[in-house]
Amino acid sequence: MASVAKQTYAQRAAKQTNPAARALLETIERKRTNLCVSVDVTKQADFLRIIDTVGPYICLVKTHVDVIEDFDSSVIDRLQELSAKHDFLIFEDRKFADIGNTVALQYSSGVYKIASWSHITNAHPVPGPSIISGLSSVGVPLGRGLLLLAEMSTKGSLATGSYTEEAVRMARANRDFVIGFIAQHRMDGVGLRENESSPDEDFLVLTPGVGLDAKGDAMGQQYRTPREVVLESGCDVIIVGRGVYGKDDAADPDAVRVQAERYRAEGWKAYQERVGISA
Amino acid sequence: MASVAKQTYAQRAAKQTNPAARALLETIERKRTNLCVSVDVTKQADFLRIIDTVGPYICLVKTHVDVIEDFDSSVIDRLQELSAKHDFLIFEDRKFADIGNTVALQYSSGVYKIASWSHITNAHPVPGPSIISGLSSVGVPLGRGLLLLAEMSTKGSLATGSYTEEAVRMARANRDFVIGFIAQHRMDGVGLRENESSPDEDFLVLTPGVGLDAKGDAMGQQYRTPREVVLESGCDVIIVGRGVYGKDDAADPDAVRVQAERYRAEGWKAYQERVGISA
Repeated sequence: MASVAKQTYAQRAAKQTNPAARALLETIERKRTNLCVSVDVTKQADFLRIIDTVGPYICLVKTHVDVIEDFDSSVIDRLQELSAKHDFLIFEDRKFADIGNTVALQYSSGVYKIASWSHITNAHPVPGPSIISGLSSVGVPLGRGLLLLAEMSTKGSLATGSYTEEAVRMARANRDFVIGFIAQHRMDGVGLRENESSPDEDFLVLTPGVGLDAKGDAMGQQYRTPREVVLESGCDVIIVGRGVYGKDDAADPDAVRVQAERYRAEGWKAYQERVGISA
Repeated sequence: MASVAKQTYAQRAAKQTNPAARALLETIERKRTNLCVSVDVTKQADFLRIIDTVGPYICLVKTHVDVIEDFDSSVIDRLQELSAKHDFLIFEDRKFADIGNTVALQYSSGVYKIASWSHITNAHPVPGPSIISGLSSVGVPLGRGLLLLAEMSTKGSLATGSYTEEAVRMARANRDFVIGFIAQHRMDGVGLRENESSPDEDFLVLTPGVGLDAKGDAMGQQYRTPREVVLESGCDVIIVGRGVYGKDDAADPDAVRVQAERYRAEGWKAYQERVGISA
């Protein structure tokens, strides 16, 4: 495993130039958590209550605001208040995937105005480099960060091989805005051509499909444990959804807290072991 | 070019089993237009006025409802009225690109409830087959159709080679719901393995990046003419945006009408030449 995975989050934070990347690493170190909770519920009351419950245990909340049926702009105000109250960042998992002109509008405009509140968002590299130019024209002036989807956790994903390599090359060419990847492994050195090197490269790797109890869902999602993801594959942030707040959107907050702390502790232990810090 | 491209839209309509595919081909034949106008503006008044203006000239309108800043549910009501008034179908260009469970929610729920009004939508194949299962669980009961993005018109697109082949294989395995492709060429026979054949295969090919005057934009979009797309590459529907309604969202309706008719006539002429009908 490349050396960056042996450095502490604090050491890596100090070297980041993108404000969102630095803030995320600092938050992870300060709160001793590499857990991101993905909150995919369709009622704003459930959405906000779950986030308020898991807030103390997370570095980042991952949202899909477009699945909230009773969405209005107050949801964003409340989300930002919770972000301040519990000290976490916001990651709208929009998976932008269109041409530059369109994604610039989707990121800045419309009902959601994602760029105005989401510290981090993500995009598929499939349209080519123009998707990054389109998004960065909006996001860089606001200090935002972009993750590219270099791999996916679903069965039969086409984000493999040369696709993944091209994603990493696109990231390398846009380091002011691309802060890392949604992936299942570290991407250090991936896609380097002959005579190229990347000694100081430090991309964050955020990893979905993490579960301690289930191995998959009925719709092709596949799960790995925090230990596999952080220790064996060198990823930086574990993304957990239903594993934390269960199948019932109105689950008992005490039960949700127990699960959030369980994942936080597992993710942190795997990190400490990776960098060689005794617990 | 495979034989399906030599058949008329009416002949092909009769053989479609998906209701959205059949309705689109019938509309094309009835209105003598294979023009789809893509309306990417951020004010609902501009959005509705442009659609009302181009309505008589199109078979399909392509929308990005998430870029409309003053969106409310009345926009959808008005859009549906215009669809009935002018006899065109609706295609929300959502480019779904997430895991099955998430896209099912994004398609059915949230502010936009896309499945309830968009006859056709599209998805990237990158997550693997589960994206189709997720979307079809919502769309099939409603008689909707899905297009897979097999190719993109942007510079440096990663939707090439084996990626495109896998997209076509995924479509072939889900013909009740996948009605065709966003692509730059016909996909007949693409991705067939040894000993496989597809004699009756008829996927629709809808093609963005069409322009008569410009060769590209500053954000990586590349343009081809209706003749190149329909006659040379065998595509079925040309998608045109700013080429029709210009750079000024409040453009004079008469000027917009002139352009819409110009593209309609060019697209139809290329089709007639392709199938061997004299004008």
